[in-house]
Amino acid sequence: MKAQVLTRYDDDLMAGQWVDLQEVPDPRIEKSNDVIVRIGGAGVCRTDLHIIEGVWRPHMDPTGDRLLPLIMGHENAGWVEAVGKEVEGIKVGDPVIVHPKISGGTCLACRRGMDMHGPGRFPGLDCNGGYAEFLCTSERNIVPLPKTLAPKEVAPYADAGLTAYRAAKKATRHLLPGESCVVIGAGGLGHIGIQCLKAMCAADVIVVDKSDASLALAGKIGADKLVKADGNEVEAVLALTGGAGAEAVIDFVGEKGTTAKGLAMTRSAGSYYVVGYGEDIRVPTVDMVITEKNIIGNLVGTWAELVELMALADRGLVELTTVEYRLADANKALQDLNAGRIHGRAVLIP
Amino acid sequence: MKAQVLTRYDDDLMAGQWVDLQEVPDPRIEKSNDVIVRIGGAGVCRTDLHIIEGVWRPHMDPTGDRLLPLIMGHENAGWVEAVGKEVEGIKVGDPVIVHPKISGGTCLACRRGMDMHGPGRFPGLDCNGGYAEFLCTSERNIVPLPKTLAPKEVAPYADAGLTAYRAAKKATRHLLPGESCVVIGAGGLGHIGIQCLKAMCAADVIVVDKSDASLALAGKIGADKLVKADGNEVEAVLALTGGAGAEAVIDFVGEKGTTAKGLAMTRSAGSYYVVGYGEDIRVPTVDMVITEKNIIGNLVGTWAELVELMALADRGLVELTTVEYRLADANKALQDLNAGRIHGRAVLIP
Amino acid sequence: MKAQVLTRYDDDLMAGQWVDLQEVPDPRIEKSNDVIVRIGGAGVCRTDLHIIEGVWRPHMDPTGDRLLPLIMGHENAGWVEAVGKEVEGIKVGDPVIVHPKISGGTCLACRRGMDMHGPGRFPGLDCNGGYAEFLCTSERNIVPLPKTLAPKEVAPYADAGLTAYRAAKKATRHLLPGESCVVIGAGGLGHIGIQCLKAMCAADVIVVDKSDASLALAGKIGADKLVKADGNEVEAVLALTGGAGAEAVIDFVGEKGTTAKGLAMTRSAGSYYVVGYGEDIRVPTVDMVITEKNIIGNLVGTWAELVELMALADRGLVELTTVEYRLADANKALQDLNAGRIHGRAVLIP
Amino acid sequence: MKAQVLTRYDDDLMAGQWVDLQEVPDPRIEKSNDVIVRIGGAGVCRTDLHIIEGVWRPHMDPTGDRLLPLIMGHENAGWVEAVGKEVEGIKVGDPVIVHPKISGGTCLACRRGMDMHGPGRFPGLDCNGGYAEFLCTSERNIVPLPKTLAPKEVAPYADAGLTAYRAAKKATRHLLPGESCVVIGAGGLGHIGIQCLKAMCAADVIVVDKSDASLALAGKIGADKLVKADGNEVEAVLALTGGAGAEAVIDFVGEKGTTAKGLAMTRSAGSYYVVGYGEDIRVPTVDMVITEKNIIGNLVGTWAELVELMALADRGLVELTTVEYRLADANKALQDLNAGRIHGRAVLIP
Repeated sequence: MKAQVLTRYDDDLMAGQWVDLQEVPDPRIEKSNDVIVRIGGAGVCRTDLHIIEGVWRPHMDPTGDRLLPLIMGHENAGWVEAVGKEVEGIKVGDPVIVHPKISGGTCLACRRGMDMHGPGRFPGLDCNGGYAEFLCTSERNIVPLPKTLAPKEVAPYADAGLTAYRAAKKATRHLLPGESCVVIGAGGLGHIGIQCLKAMCAADVIVVDKSDASLALAGKIGADKLVKADGNEVEAVLALTGGAGAEAVIDFVGEKGTTAKGLAMTRSAGSYYVVGYGEDIRVPTVDMVITEKNIIGNLVGTWAELVELMALADRGLVELTTVEYRLADANKALQDLNAGRIHGRAVLIP
Repeated sequence: MKAQVLTRYDDDLMAGQWVDLQEVPDPRIEKSNDVIVRIGGAGVCRTDLHIIEGVWRPHMDPTGDRLLPLIMGHENAGWVEAVGKEVEGIKVGDPVIVHPKISGGTCLACRRGMDMHGPGRFPGLDCNGGYAEFLCTSERNIVPLPKTLAPKEVAPYADAGLTAYRAAKKATRHLLPGESCVVIGAGGLGHIGIQCLKAMCAADVIVVDKSDASLALAGKIGADKLVKADGNEVEAVLALTGGAGAEAVIDFVGEKGTTAKGLAMTRSAGSYYVVGYGEDIRVPTVDMVITEKNIIGNLVGTWAELVELMALADRGLVELTTVEYRLADANKALQDLNAGRIHGRAVLIP
Repeated sequence: MKAQVLTRYDDDLMAGQWVDLQEVPDPRIEKSNDVIVRIGGAGVCRTDLHIIEGVWRPHMDPTGDRLLPLIMGHENAGWVEAVGKEVEGIKVGDPVIVHPKISGGTCLACRRGMDMHGPGRFPGLDCNGGYAEFLCTSERNIVPLPKTLAPKEVAPYADAGLTAYRAAKKATRHLLPGESCVVIGAGGLGHIGIQCLKAMCAADVIVVDKSDASLALAGKIGADKLVKADGNEVEAVLALTGGAGAEAVIDFVGEKGTTAKGLAMTRSAGSYYVVGYGEDIRVPTVDMVITEKNIIGNLVGTWAELVELMALADRGLVELTTVEYRLADANKALQDLNAGRIHGRAVLIP
Repeated sequence: MKAQVLTRYDDDLMAGQWVDLQEVPDPRIEKSNDVIVRIGGAGVCRTDLHIIEGVWRPHMDPTGDRLLPLIMGHENAGWVEAVGKEVEGIKVGDPVIVHPKISGGTCLACRRGMDMHGPGRFPGLDCNGGYAEFLCTSERNIVPLPKTLAPKEVAPYADAGLTAYRAAKKATRHLLPGESCVVIGAGGLGHIGIQCLKAMCAADVIVVDKSDASLALAGKIGADKLVKADGNEVEAVLALTGGAGAEAVIDFVGEKGTTAKGLAMTRSAGSYYVVGYGEDIRVPTVDMVITEKNIIGNLVGTWAELVELMALADRGLVELTTVEYRLADANKALQDLNAGRIHGRAVLIP
């Protein structure tokens, strides 16, 4: 099959030619519950740029370059091409989206539904992913797609969308009418998060962003109040929340000072959700005590949560803007992403 | 002041003249946290008919007719007319809605926010209510109204709306995208419940009713699927839920067989919420075990939940259809309610 | 291998000779995640008597006697004898206890950790169980045993213990200090339930039983208060709970009137847990509304919950009284169980 | 009455003579729900030293020394001496413990049971407290004492005990058998926290402290495992938890590096509870994301939680070591506290 292969790390993000279109052997069923997916769309994610730069190398490839050559691509959707001999309930030809983790399924975390917290593999990160015609994965991370959803249109939900969904879902479990939720950053993830919040609770959604275009989009998809991040965003949020702050703040940025600001926007007894990352959180213990706030980490989402997100998409309650690139043009997509030229999410199609 | 006074029980619901318009002494502040409300609207509720019939007599008036004469009216809203000398934060002239229970505020149930489960008084049921120009109540059950909401338009939320809200809220705490909630009965309460569900979760709302008009209304206010209660409603709901039933079923009827049908529509591990009442629930223990279903009782709502419901109304997320009658025409309103001639909720205005 | 085989249904529970000790083929690994367990102990359960009588026949064997011959035994523990070629983390020789359900692992219920609510098989009920030298099951339902626990001493936890644990655990999630939990029935399951409650919350445990011996045992294992079920048990429980009833009532009997009594012992806003079964629950809807009680069904427990129960047993926080019988004496064990001659749980050993 | 009065701030903690025994007017009932308590015991707390030093001055007394003279003492218990004319359910002579906050009772936080998060007053901090013969407070913060408990023996539960209880209670709501809870610091609060954990869940309690005496005491009151804080405490905890850390870590210290160590001891998806304070928490956002940990602030406890804690004490499930000083010897008690000469909690008695 054809695949875009990463053969070396490169910290020069200007170089622009990182993956090579190669003819590689087709993946084959090896285990009884393996599934091979014919790729319909593979999301191009900022994490892919970080892989190229070597950011993940200490985590995924600590003992040298043994991971490369690697086919990247961890946001995958397509159609079932072949199944292992003990796979049940999934048929060749079924449209599917692929959860980004192949969890083992037998550890206590898995058995409680917490796929993220047991051992496993991550196609596109520590084994071959979806920048290719086919992907070998497992029935463990296959989610069937409703008929309304085309693989190439939903692929980015597999990771970016799922992460936004899980954080928003956690907040909706406690948000009540009359309460507020601040969303910091209305970009790729924040944009999904806003829609999930509006679909799943009645809290006022206050969106904070420094980009007018992002704020305009946020307003269009349902944000109740828009706050320009112009240096006075904390005061603005406090003014919108009776001086007390919001019961939930979801930070999709996590750098350039948003953590201190996000905590300052959080009401006493409220929760600040960390999704984006970059800087350190720094907070006096006495403030945590006096305000009784919570700081909540967030990591992708469970298999069941990807099913839930697809139910939202199926009903038109979340929508995704995608920009298509041919698989052969993967470097172009990565360059455009790096240069900030993509509005929405880039998806590689066959 | 003028008030409509019930002077005797009457089990002849055809009689039609139950309350007398009398001149009675104005209520006076007696306790330091008393509040007098000038009534802007008093909802006329089926419970009022039951009081007239004497249904509540054994509970509220067990030792004779000492309760009468009684001013009925437990769904009240208006403006603050006077406050006791230790009332804080409520000013004369403020528009307010009155929670139906004056809870004591010091028992463990109250201190945990569960107003319904401690001792207290119920204006309109065991002391004078709002079929009058003024009502004496307590700061304990005053909820300030947002400016957008006129007392006469929201009065029925105080009891009917609050009951529907609480049951719907409980369901939304566990309902996830892709799951379903059946609403049995799209009348006065069901109609509010449907809107609360749509505002607070992304589950599919399936409405079951025997009236085409009620189903049409349900569709208009957001129900996702409509099922005519024609004897095959259980099969219809199962067909709409992949054969397994709904994760939540809220029964606003509770008689004429809806309890058995409601349980049959409930999925394994799901919850059946009892709101309407009339018949007995009868279910084999073995069925409760094999299916692991839950049967959940529901009783009005807390003071905080009335605040939440007003936040929904303030944002236009729930709307109420009301029919106005002059206080002098209270008997007419009660007759029309008894005869099924009211669409929406009747409200007495000064 | 040797196995005790049920070859025909028999509704004469006096007959006493139902299973035949036969030489049957050893089970063999067929699927990649199969596991063969050498039986160390197989619990003898009242359900086995019901299987013999044909009670389960309509559910498990609806189209005739195709299920028979059947090796019963659904409470199994032992040592791993062989594993399928894709089994990881379980080694030959490991001591294990076998969860009573082989769940599929891929449906939404399984993926959320709710093993009981998806499709699956039940060794000893719808396929061969543990009244034998070996059992073929799956890695899906294998729980490793801590070194402190011998298979023959813990086998009955697999079903009876797990059921009691799950119901008790649900109650402990809401029981607070100063609150009460009634346990109706201090027999095989109740006895485990009491210990789980004492280990996992600080509520007062009130045990209701008609047997003085059972009450004495309940007291020995930690029950705070003992109530003889002599016809006045509701009044006695109310007297012990300030007239209001208990926040939780767990009914391990479910027949002979315990359901009405159990509900009467339940406090407003409290929960009545159904575990034992036999009679119908019958309750007026108006009572469910006025009291806002919950009726909670309970079905076995999850795989993770069996791990949790083994953690309790490992720490000596629950203990089980067992009576050993040789596999060859299975009919004797069944007879003794039927005749009420077993105190504790009978276990077949090789 | 006699009272110990603070007349000036003093940052010289060696001075040792801060409060003066004066004859001051008896407090009088002013509001209809006021309650006057004859003090049986007033806990002497490190916060009192901080008040003397002026640490709380910017918060409680920002506009000058208008707060002084002040009677300190925020951990009070005694007997009801007089009640306002609308107080119900509390009688003269009743033994009581006094919740440290007089909450208003009408704001949304109060109405949801969250006394700590609305406006209010704090006797001993911003109005006169219990270093005196009598205290004027409100029915809002009176908790009746069970007969088993003498005021002077329980006074320190009012604040120190309640704070430990609330944090421990939060952890027990998610801790399951087989999981672990680390307690950092087995001093005054930690010591109560350990007992609450043991009473309310079955998790393994691992206590970390640098003092051998504190560890010995922790072992005596039920800690399952003891870890000396000798610089290798993180490694020791990881070794005791299979390398993964504990599902809950409660930090009663909050300074000298315990925050970083506490977070390092917390398992992925686990929760780190902040109770003690002093230093800043500093954590990379990326770590919060990858591990999906939670950081949970904790602030005293609710009125209902003080009732719950008294239920634990009533049953002997928590015990407190107190050292009695005469009211006249308040300076001696404060000196001994400052010098670390008190084992347990100091209590002033009449």
